[in-house]
Amino acid sequence: MGAEAAPALLYLPVLPGPGSSIELPSDAAHYVARVCRGRVGETVEATDGQGARAVIRLTRVREGVGAEVVSIVREVPGPRAWVLCGPPEGERADWLVEKLAEFGVERFQPVDCERGSWNRAGVRRARWARLAEAAMRQSRRTRLMTVSVPLAIEQALESLPEGSDRWLTDESGGAPIAEAGRSSGLAVVLVGPAGGLTERERNVATQAGFTPVRLARARLRTETAALAWAARWTGSTG
Amino acid sequence: MGAEAAPALLYLPVLPGPGSSIELPSDAAHYVARVCRGRVGETVEATDGQGARAVIRLTRVREGVGAEVVSIVREVPGPRAWVLCGPPEGERADWLVEKLAEFGVERFQPVDCERGSWNRAGVRRARWARLAEAAMRQSRRTRLMTVSVPLAIEQALESLPEGSDRWLTDESGGAPIAEAGRSSGLAVVLVGPAGGLTERERNVATQAGFTPVRLARARLRTETAALAWAARWTGSTG
Repeated sequence: MGAEAAPALLYLPVLPGPGSSIELPSDAAHYVARVCRGRVGETVEATDGQGARAVIRLTRVREGVGAEVVSIVREVPGPRAWVLCGPPEGERADWLVEKLAEFGVERFQPVDCERGSWNRAGVRRARWARLAEAAMRQSRRTRLMTVSVPLAIEQALESLPEGSDRWLTDESGGAPIAEAGRSSGLAVVLVGPAGGLTERERNVATQAGFTPVRLARARLRTETAALAWAARWTGSTG
Repeated sequence: MGAEAAPALLYLPVLPGPGSSIELPSDAAHYVARVCRGRVGETVEATDGQGARAVIRLTRVREGVGAEVVSIVREVPGPRAWVLCGPPEGERADWLVEKLAEFGVERFQPVDCERGSWNRAGVRRARWARLAEAAMRQSRRTRLMTVSVPLAIEQALESLPEGSDRWLTDESGGAPIAEAGRSSGLAVVLVGPAGGLTERERNVATQAGFTPVRLARARLRTETAALAWAARWTGSTG
């Protein structure tokens, strides 16, 4: 497509099998026709956000964009990470969501804490879903991060799968940080809100199997701690 | 001071010795008197941004804030990191600067590349300096990150100290990521602009001793790569 770098993946939530003809949704059509200036006969990569990496060939680039599915590879799921996070200050959640999606986190779970609850979360969730989609496409990943409905911290902890590895970011945490995020299955991290977790919440988490980890020799903001953990996790797992 | 978490450090660029009386600059005075509601006789921590951690006692909180310097500890410099970075897209440099400062990076060096140059850098530098200061205070670090004047990539590479460890973030980098950032002295990372480094620039960097490292098994945006590296660096060095 003439770009110096590979273009972003197309996001096609409905992706039929090889040989099928498809009409691209308007966002994807705009990207192909206007941004990348794709031509008939050229191929583009797409994903369904659930692990599929497809090659499609453009068959029409006027009055919308038509294409034919050439091939689909379904990628094996790698290690998984969930981020449970109290609200940071201001608008910092927006880019936190974007970065977590770039790092390949599977689920972003906002949690309401005693010292901070998510307001207007409904509005933001639509925005976050768009940011997660854009980050997936840009980073050429094939799995769309789930942005969950905010839950109270107790509910969020109760709903975790058995056997998951659990970490709690904590300025005074003692666990070796090199271990944080190393997990063959599902790694979960809990990050307190800007005002921190209360003693009670900390105890609830510890009893639920969360191990405190320190990510820097300094105090990190909520979103920075979440991000630092995710950066380490993605680096240690790929 | 009644806050649940420790308050941010005060930034006092001029910090006289123990026993001295000082008049707080207006920003610091506002923070102490209005935000923290400090009272006469209470102590507050402050830094000069050059490694000093001081305790000061409030002697007046009306018509400005007066204080007496009680003690000063000068912290030993730890491992050092510089981030050389091409321009990311849009306004993403703002929070990149904030996060690098939270992670304890010593110097942020914007570099102009063939595929991206920093515009209106003068205006932004003042803003970035404020963000770096706020991040230092918030994370209770005692060293202020330097925000350098943008340099052409060749100039930036030539001005690096001898003997520094040098890393280049690269989607196809082969070096083990666990090593990235492990350095007893000065670690330097070079991150290309949104459009990437050119082949020529990559060669220049390699000849200057930069080792390509891959930080995730996906493509990361400019600011995300810089951040991922800094998160790993701070985690491995404290």
